[in-house]
Amino acid sequence: MSVSAPAGFRAMGVSCGIKPGKLDLALVHNLGPNFDFAAVFTTNEVKAAPVLWSEQIAKTDKARAILLNSGGANACTGPAGFSVTHNSAEYLAEKLGLSPIDVAVCSTGIIGEQLDLIKIKTGIDALTSSFDNDGGLAAQAILTTDSKRKEVLVNGNGYSIGGMAKGAGMLAPSLATMLVVITTDADLSKVNLSVLLRAVANKTFNRISSDGCTSTNDSIMLMANGSSKVSPTSDEFEKLLTEVCSSLANQLILDAEGATVFVELIVDKAKSENQAELVAKKVASDSLVKTALFGRDPNWGRVAAAAGSAGAGIDPNSLDVYFNEIPLCLNGAANGDRHRVKLNSETIRIRVSLNQGSAEVKFLTTDLSTKYVLENSEYSS
Amino acid sequence: MSVSAPAGFRAMGVSCGIKPGKLDLALVHNLGPNFDFAAVFTTNEVKAAPVLWSEQIAKTDKARAILLNSGGANACTGPAGFSVTHNSAEYLAEKLGLSPIDVAVCSTGIIGEQLDLIKIKTGIDALTSSFDNDGGLAAQAILTTDSKRKEVLVNGNGYSIGGMAKGAGMLAPSLATMLVVITTDADLSKVNLSVLLRAVANKTFNRISSDGCTSTNDSIMLMANGSSKVSPTSDEFEKLLTEVCSSLANQLILDAEGATVFVELIVDKAKSENQAELVAKKVASDSLVKTALFGRDPNWGRVAAAAGSAGAGIDPNSLDVYFNEIPLCLNGAANGDRHRVKLNSETIRIRVSLNQGSAEVKFLTTDLSTKYVLENSEYSS
Repeated sequence: MSVSAPAGFRAMGVSCGIKPGKLDLALVHNLGPNFDFAAVFTTNEVKAAPVLWSEQIAKTDKARAILLNSGGANACTGPAGFSVTHNSAEYLAEKLGLSPIDVAVCSTGIIGEQLDLIKIKTGIDALTSSFDNDGGLAAQAILTTDSKRKEVLVNGNGYSIGGMAKGAGMLAPSLATMLVVITTDADLSKVNLSVLLRAVANKTFNRISSDGCTSTNDSIMLMANGSSKVSPTSDEFEKLLTEVCSSLANQLILDAEGATVFVELIVDKAKSENQAELVAKKVASDSLVKTALFGRDPNWGRVAAAAGSAGAGIDPNSLDVYFNEIPLCLNGAANGDRHRVKLNSETIRIRVSLNQGSAEVKFLTTDLSTKYVLENSEYSS
Repeated sequence: MSVSAPAGFRAMGVSCGIKPGKLDLALVHNLGPNFDFAAVFTTNEVKAAPVLWSEQIAKTDKARAILLNSGGANACTGPAGFSVTHNSAEYLAEKLGLSPIDVAVCSTGIIGEQLDLIKIKTGIDALTSSFDNDGGLAAQAILTTDSKRKEVLVNGNGYSIGGMAKGAGMLAPSLATMLVVITTDADLSKVNLSVLLRAVANKTFNRISSDGCTSTNDSIMLMANGSSKVSPTSDEFEKLLTEVCSSLANQLILDAEGATVFVELIVDKAKSENQAELVAKKVASDSLVKTALFGRDPNWGRVAAAAGSAGAGIDPNSLDVYFNEIPLCLNGAANGDRHRVKLNSETIRIRVSLNQGSAEVKFLTTDLSTKYVLENSEYSS
């Protein structure tokens, strides 16, 4: 169940020696007949070479192949780094009988180190000399600190959507750059794929947050080839694509680095979705809220303080905070002893009601643990 | 050397039982002849009762006394909480022969719990029934998780400025709310104190950052009584006040919760001070940068990624990053093996050169340690 499942796609993962003994290079090849392509990239001003390259590909709205590697981000690598990306795309294009402009590239791993083009070429040789088709191996080859593959397959009416992802954050995640590739055999030649992908990404990947840091390499890519000859409406496809992206977002947050608890944060009764989102983002990335969650303390006061610091125009006197649906704060003040809420399940649900309107957003996040600090102080990215 | 040193001020700290056996209530009393007053408060929309009260006092530009307590923030306490602040000010005013509008109030401690007015009144009785004058005890009484008092005294030409502080963060700090009281016997009746205090606070307290969280209670207050009969120029006083605030800011960051290293972060060659500040703030609060520092890893890549995510319009190809003045990244790419820099001193100096102009800011920050996580998961605020 992955990117190789929709008809007319071939995906594979191999080991090319960037991470000795481990899978580290993947290919997703679109065999057509259509080559519609859309992508969303990191907002970081420091963009990795593969992001700069793939942004150019995305401008054409077409792509026939995506080459992905783990073990090196190819970020902060200067002109030499860009040349490695460019040459990799060129070499793969040659092997597949394509033009370099048909080939998008994604990288993830350590910042500031050059990738070895010779190893990548060897990997491309392996990826293109057999016809093995295994989306699972592709999904495996893009992992870094992830503990498991993230894959999904959703079936529509006569077509399907497959997806794979790696990382542990929002589109603004952690060192664990988020890479997402989605394939579908639906015919979307009449849909504005780029607008649709951005809208869905904003409501899924942008609503998960582990440490609030923004990677230099984040990329979400969607390829549609129309081989099913089914043309869903934009609305119908958006619904299924949201299902795909939500599933991957969930898998990402469940595997977030150092997380000891999974947090569902709902901000509701907001004036607007934008207001709700501002508050949710702030609460979900607040170190004091997150350390309290690590301590399993239903510390609604820290949640209220974080909500107030979002600059979202909340009314402190109409703020309610629920932990596991128990109201610990009503109208901005304590409502009984907070220790009556025991946070001993695997998931904690926090609800912040602004009581200013009817808009609502849901965010997924984690705690801030000693394990997170240790992992990120020992691992270099 | 503290708030009681300038002529015409009396300061004292007592134990009133909020924190049994510890000093927890302080008074700073201005005996005149002038009662000029200015204050800067938290930007959090969820403001504690004493902040709401003191904001009203600050509008008059006059105050004769400041009452401060630790052990309870009186935030998220509703109308009952506001009533405690109001009644405390009223009771102190009565004892000192003042009007309640002459009395500013500051609180720090746990959010969401009511303060006991009876205990506070007992404390006010003690503070007003003797003439003991000890700024050190006042500075002691406002501490929470602080490991030591923060005090400073600077002498001008015929006048002096005393200051005390508690907390561990920027004006947007941690659970360790930042409270600052500054007293001076200079005559500043012709100076716009409020504008001056805000300008100095922005360049000192707002350029230290521990965890980037914003408290509900932060307050910086300045009282000037003119008893020295010396009227310094605004520029002259600003220089000395900056010295006072820089010293307190340094003391705060050196005592930041869970910090294992002290970080001096310089962002220079920026287009504007605003651009430099945006970048510095982002780098200083980035979890990945801070965990790397905990691991004593000169991880310039994380610094570059954080700088790029500030939305400050930097040019990634002209970015230089220095650790302890050794250039590890030049023009946005690696410059030699970063492990040649050993981060084994008590202070780490990081310099980020944007090479887009000539503006510069200096920020003080700390690492993100397992100790920080443990302290903040165990301590309730």
